[in-house]
Formats: sequence, C-alpha cells, structure tokens
Amino acid sequence: MTEQQPQFELRDEDELSLDLIEAQYALKDSRDKKNAKSVLVLVSGIELAGKGEAVKQLREWLDPRYLKVKADAPKLLSSNQTFWQSYTRFIPAEGQIVVMFGNWYSDLLSTAMHVSKPLDDNLFDAYIEQMRSFENDLENNHVHVIKVWFDLSWKSLQKRLDQVDASEQHWHKLHGLDWRNKKQYDTLQSLSQRFTDDWFIIDGEDEALRDQCFAQYVLQTLKALPSHQTKVTEKWQQAEVPKALLEPEKASLEKSDYKEELNKLSKKVADALRYDDRKVIIAFEGMDAAGKGGAIKRIVKKLDPREYEIHSIAAPERYELRRPYLWRFWSKLSDGGKITIFDRTWYGRVLVERIEGFANAVEWQRAYDEINRFENNLVDCQTVLVKVWLAISKDEQELRFKEREKTPHKRFKITEEDWRNREKWDDYLNAAADMFERTDTDYAPWYVIATDDKYTARIEVLKAILKQLKAD
Amino acid sequence: MTEQQPQFELRDEDELSLDLIEAQYALKDSRDKKNAKSVLVLVSGIELAGKGEAVKQLREWLDPRYLKVKADAPKLLSSNQTFWQSYTRFIPAEGQIVVMFGNWYSDLLSTAMHVSKPLDDNLFDAYIEQMRSFENDLENNHVHVIKVWFDLSWKSLQKRLDQVDASEQHWHKLHGLDWRNKKQYDTLQSLSQRFTDDWFIIDGEDEALRDQCFAQYVLQTLKALPSHQTKVTEKWQQAEVPKALLEPEKASLEKSDYKEELNKLSKKVADALRYDDRKVIIAFEGMDAAGKGGAIKRIVKKLDPREYEIHSIAAPERYELRRPYLWRFWSKLSDGGKITIFDRTWYGRVLVERIEGFANAVEWQRAYDEINRFENNLVDCQTVLVKVWLAISKDEQELRFKEREKTPHKRFKITEEDWRNREKWDDYLNAAADMFERTDTDYAPWYVIATDDKYTARIEVLKAILKQLKAD
Repeated sequence: MTEQQPQFELRDEDELSLDLIEAQYALKDSRDKKNAKSVLVLVSGIELAGKGEAVKQLREWLDPRYLKVKADAPKLLSSNQTFWQSYTRFIPAEGQIVVMFGNWYSDLLSTAMHVSKPLDDNLFDAYIEQMRSFENDLENNHVHVIKVWFDLSWKSLQKRLDQVDASEQHWHKLHGLDWRNKKQYDTLQSLSQRFTDDWFIIDGEDEALRDQCFAQYVLQTLKALPSHQTKVTEKWQQAEVPKALLEPEKASLEKSDYKEELNKLSKKVADALRYDDRKVIIAFEGMDAAGKGGAIKRIVKKLDPREYEIHSIAAPERYELRRPYLWRFWSKLSDGGKITIFDRTWYGRVLVERIEGFANAVEWQRAYDEINRFENNLVDCQTVLVKVWLAISKDEQELRFKEREKTPHKRFKITEEDWRNREKWDDYLNAAADMFERTDTDYAPWYVIATDDKYTARIEVLKAILKQLKAD
Repeated sequence: MTEQQPQFELRDEDELSLDLIEAQYALKDSRDKKNAKSVLVLVSGIELAGKGEAVKQLREWLDPRYLKVKADAPKLLSSNQTFWQSYTRFIPAEGQIVVMFGNWYSDLLSTAMHVSKPLDDNLFDAYIEQMRSFENDLENNHVHVIKVWFDLSWKSLQKRLDQVDASEQHWHKLHGLDWRNKKQYDTLQSLSQRFTDDWFIIDGEDEALRDQCFAQYVLQTLKALPSHQTKVTEKWQQAEVPKALLEPEKASLEKSDYKEELNKLSKKVADALRYDDRKVIIAFEGMDAAGKGGAIKRIVKKLDPREYEIHSIAAPERYELRRPYLWRFWSKLSDGGKITIFDRTWYGRVLVERIEGFANAVEWQRAYDEINRFENNLVDCQTVLVKVWLAISKDEQELRFKEREKTPHKRFKITEEDWRNREKWDDYLNAAADMFERTDTDYAPWYVIATDDKYTARIEVLKAILKQLKAD
C-alpha cells in the first residue's frame, strides 16, 4: 500500500461535491453486483489538526444518508479482547462508506502513551503488523481500507490551543493525552512514524486545503476501487487425505463403562471450563450425522445454560453475505460469553463453500491464512480454541441416514441435501485434508475423533477439551 | 393473559418431540408470510427447580438449529438504561423461537433482593407494569411472549443443594442470592407472587413431568398462535391540523444577525449537550426539503464527531422488517452514545408507513401509545428527548425542490418520490396533526418550528434544545 502521496489543489466546492456524490452513488449501486465494494476510512492524527472538521465537511459534500461516521474516544487495548473486536460490527457492508474516527490505531496509540509501563517497541510493531494483516484481509474481502493521518506542528498546535474555547480545551485534554506537553507530543510523533508510511498524510496547517485534500483523496479512492481478484496464480497442492478420515477407528465401549466414564468426565470438563480464567470456544465440524449434536449435549451436561452459548451455523443471510465471510462470527463472538460452542463454524468457507462453489478458488484458497490469523488473534487474547472434527465412515453414515428416515421424530434431520452432500463424499474428504494441512496450528490444533462408535467419540471429545485446556 | 393453568400428563417422548418439531417448522415456514409470528419464552424461578434442565431437554426435543437460548446471569437494573435495552438485540425475528433464561424479570428480582436499600413495593410494581406493557407491545408486533416460572419448596431446595457437587454449589451461590438463606427464599417467593399470575407455573418437584410440562406448554403455544389483528374497532378521530403547519410563520433574520446569534448559540448548545449528565436524543421530522440536514449541521458545529452520532433513517431492510418496527431504533440506541441525532425517526410508522399503507390501520393507530411508552422508558432512564418538526409551507417546498433540480450537486436530494410525496401533502399534514395530538407528552414534547426562513429555523432549533435540556 506504500505509494507516492497524492497532491491535491483547491477545486470548486460544488463540482467536488457533485463528483463525490456521483462516486458515492456508483459505490452504492454496486451492492449485490459483480465487483461490489465497500470503503472503510480510518482517520487519526494530531488533535486540532482538523480531522473533525474535515470529516464534517466530507459529510456535507457527500449524501450524508449513505455515509456512516463511527467516532469513539480511544479505548485502551486489553489483554482479553482482540483489537478488532469492538469495531467489527461497524465494518461497512457492500455499497457503504464508513469513516472510523476512532479505530484500532487510536487505541494502540492511546495504550502506548498511557500505561504506566509503556508498550515496548517490539510489541508496538507486532500490533501494527497484526493490524495491517487484518486490513489486508478486509481488502481481500472487498472492504477497501484507506488510512488518513492529520498532522500538525507543535507550534501550530499550541497556537490553536490558545484560541479554542474553554469548553473545547476540556475536550482536547480528555481521554488521556495532554496536548500542552511537548514530550508527549514528540513521543506520539515518533510512534506515528512507525506505522504511517502507508497512510495519506494531510498537513492540518491550511484549513481549506485540508478539508479538500481529505475529500479529494476519498474521491480518488472511490473512483479507482480495485476489482475482485478472481485469478488463481498457482496450482493448488491437494493434501493427502489422512487415514483417520479414510478409515476412522472402530472402537467399542460398553454402555455401563461409558455411563461411568461420561459421568466422571462431564463433571471434570464442566469444572475445567468454569474455572479457567480464559474464554473457551469449542468448534465442531464433520460430515452430516457424525454426532455433533450428541457430543455438544454431553459437554453441557453438567453446565447451566447461563454458563454457555451454542451457535448452530446455517447458510448465511443476505445481509451477512454483503460483508466479509468472517463477519457473522466476529459479531457472534463480540457478545463475548465465557463458553461458546459452534455447531459448524467459519470453516464452512473451505468446506461447503469451496465444494459448492459459493466461494471461488481465490477466496477459499486465501481463507486458510485468514482463518489462522483470526484464530491466532483470539488465542493471543486469552481464548482457548478447541477444534474438533468428528470422523465418520461412509458406511456408518448410511446406516444413520436410514435410521433417521425410519424414525418419525428424527426425520427432520435428514433431507435430500444430505444425500446430495453424501455423493460429494470424496470432495469433502479432500477439502478436510487441505483444511487440516493448513489450519492445524500449534495455538489451535485439530482433534480428529473417530465417531462410528458414538460412546467412544463422546468420551474422546471430552478428553480433547481437557487436553487443550491444559495445553498451554 | 391471566388464564387457567394448563394441566399436562406424561407423554411418549418421541411423539412429543415429533409434535414439537412439526410445530417449530410450521412457525419457521410462516416467515415472510401472512400471520408470521415469533415466540419469546421467558424463563425464571427458584434455583435448582430444574429450569436449566428443562431448557436443555427442550433443545433436545426440538430441532436445535432453530432454537436460540439466550441465558445470562441477572444484571442489576440501572438508572440510566431501560430494562429492555440489553435484551432487544435478541428479540426473535419472524419464524424464530428464543428462550430468554435471563430476562428483565430476573434482573428486577436481583435488583429487589440485592441493593442495600431494597426497592419499595410501589417501584417494584411500577416496573412490573412497564414490563407487561412492553410485552404487550411485543405481542402486538407479532412476538408472542410466554412466561414460565419454575417453583420449588424450601425443603426440596435444601435437599437438592445437599446433593449437588461442590462446583455447582459455587454456581448456585453466584450472582447474589444465597439459596441457603430462608429469609431470602421467603422474600423471593413473596416478590414472585406480585407478578406471576400471568405466568405458567411449573412445580420442579417431579423431574420428568417438569421437563414435559415445559415442552408441552411450548407446544400448546406454538399450536395456538394468534393471528395478526387487522380489524379496527373504532372510528378514527382525525385531529385538526394546527395553524403552525398550515401556515408556518414567515420570520426573517438578517444574515449578519444570524451569524452572530448562531455563533453564540451553537457554543451554548455544545456546552449544554456536553456537560449534561444525561444522554440526549435529538429527533427530526418534517416534510422533504424542510432543512433537517442544515439544522443538524448547526447543532454539531461546535462538537467533535467523537461526541455525537447521527442516524439517517431510510426504508427498513428485509431483516428489520421481520421484527417489531421499533427494533431498529432499539438496536441503534443500545450502542448508547452520549448525543444521538436522528434524521427521521420511529415516527415514520405514523407518517410515511401510515400514508403509504406499509402499516395497516390497526398497526399505526396502536403505534402512538407504543411510541409514547418507548419514549417514556428512555426519559425515565436519564435521557432527554428533543423532538423537532420543521414546518415548511407548500410554496417554499416547491421553490426548494426547483432550486435542487437546477443545482447539479444538489440534484441527488430530489427524486420522483419527493414529487409524489408532495402530492400527498394533505395526508402528511393530517398524519402530523394526529401525531402531535397523541405524542406531544410532558416528558417528550414536540417543538414545531417554522422553516420557510432557514436562518430563523436553525436558531429556533438550537433554542428548543436548550429549552428541553432545562425543562426538568
């Protein structure tokens, strides 16, 4: 994203406004169409450099009904929330422009400047790298991100502070920074140098040009939005299907032993989940009828419904499709319960969406890294992620399907679609194999559990949870 | 809602499950159709009476993919958040069933039992009345609400507490209540008597019957969902159109006087908004081209974008239409900024939706009271609501429309629809007249401001804000 800083000159305001509105309407009209895009504008900078005025002016020049400004005072980054967690709800949908006046960079700067023990440079740089990766993932998911920094010299800042009203003075001292403190100013300037090389820098000195520079940069962005990437550059290396999937083990457990073991383990799991200081996410994938529901039932056996939340993931809704595919999981996690269980997950992207063609090759091939980053961010923020694949054999699935068809109150569990998916058995095995190869990470490993014997499978799931909780 | 308690007997589990699933699918299929409904199940009661188990069992018998359980530990009711604010996001959409295991009643009980100074009976009863009104409004907006109380005698409770594991003991002491304390138990029982007469009471003594009673009550509810009310019972009394709307005053203000006054007042307003301890909502309505955008611009003139949020209200999206019409405003308010400005509001229900027939007569006629309750709840919770109607004359509107058509960068502001709306000028005046008559309350009065002279109008809007902030 590093590029030559564009140069802008003052234009006729009405003409600029007209151009902006036309570009805005073109963006709006792209919704639900090929190459639909959204635009996210991150704004930060020195106080009183005029970013507030520039944003207000942009709102005047655009059609304000289709511009969302999300402006919060900076928050301190916390050790148990990812930097994006409080913002993802406001990520624009296709056709929308959102200006984030408060954003992950302002939070980071705030954190770096405020904690009694400041962030060391390495940690600061690590955050910056994570943020850029996140923005890159947004970009690839059709949210075009631009970043604008409003700069102002120490001398001008002091002059402007002299001139503002008492009540505004108050505002400009709020939220931590004291803009009368030269040392703080210098620290902020040197921190900003560490990450603004891919930002558009606006000099806040000249008020008229400042607003126009901002608006013209937005206009230039709107007029040159990149098309969706659809060409795959490399040949895909299909991973070998692991034996655990081709021939799941046929264990067998006596009912009485199972009952005893289950009783013991479900208590142990409940306690382990309950008293762990971290949040826990348990994610289930596997072929139809592999027993995900049954396994979940045994996990929550000794828990109270107030202690956990279960999300059953079906096909996305229209308004979810207009955003990055991880968006609906971001928003489910932002409620932030202690224990969250997913019956099917974000891995749908590289399973059903890959196989059915809902995601094109570029999209699903890119998704492994996106998912790894997503999970890594969560684990970094005191979340334990337990990923379970329930491996059923093709014969056992057929038995269970037929059993479902015969049983009136289970018939709803089996549809034409399940039989159709079964015909794509090998595609699913291949997709699962690629998934394990690329997302079986040290921070969030996969537990592949043979499930032809339901009793054994349920016990193994409980053991996997205990193992992962103790894993680090 | 007070009715005979239904009596249930043990049924074959598989048959019960089948009936439940069929009823659940019928509900699901009602989505987007005539008489579409959703079901909200509120669950509360004595600890260890088995509500957790009953909810888990219901999840087993239903198709769990289409049952959402929202279970939180109780929160204390706060003086600056309405009792519904944290729950409205989870109100079910058409076709959905949601079980709220934590809900406004558990919060109320918690509050009543915990504060050092307990709620007095009058306040407790006032809350109950508000909650019932809110549920009644949900009901009228097609969210069918049922309430289930799980009861347990003191003796049985103590016996069960003796039997549970140490770790569960811990859970059952969490969140305030000590279930070993007979006095607390008695207080809770006597408080519950004050509101459970319209609840379905389940005796938690018999575990098997308990789960079945719950499930069968849900089934009975699903099978007998009421149709939407569509028949208007009384003749509508059209209010007289006030003179302020028929002939808005033609004031006139010199530009230089305006500039001076605006400068003074916008600072005053910024300070008043900024330093008021309460939240402030400023709501604009009025004919097209009445100058809502211009007025908003002057309100925020001296504010920083981090201090306020502006919502421009357009036609609802599909997923919003599947919920009560106030839902999209509930969710916008739950982000809870200090200053929130609405460019068009929930009054769309009794204006455009009434006139265009998007809401039928029963719906819009009921909406006045619903809106009043909504606003009253907000004002009760330390929110100031400033409602402004900008009154333009028909001639002035025509001038502004033509001016917009002539000006390239303003042309987007004028569409065929605006001209069509203009043809319904008298309908809008009548609708506005009814709205003032019914929603001009002492806690949230309307400010009708003549706007043919833009300068005067903008000044008057600022004065109205100052006035309402000082009103109580």
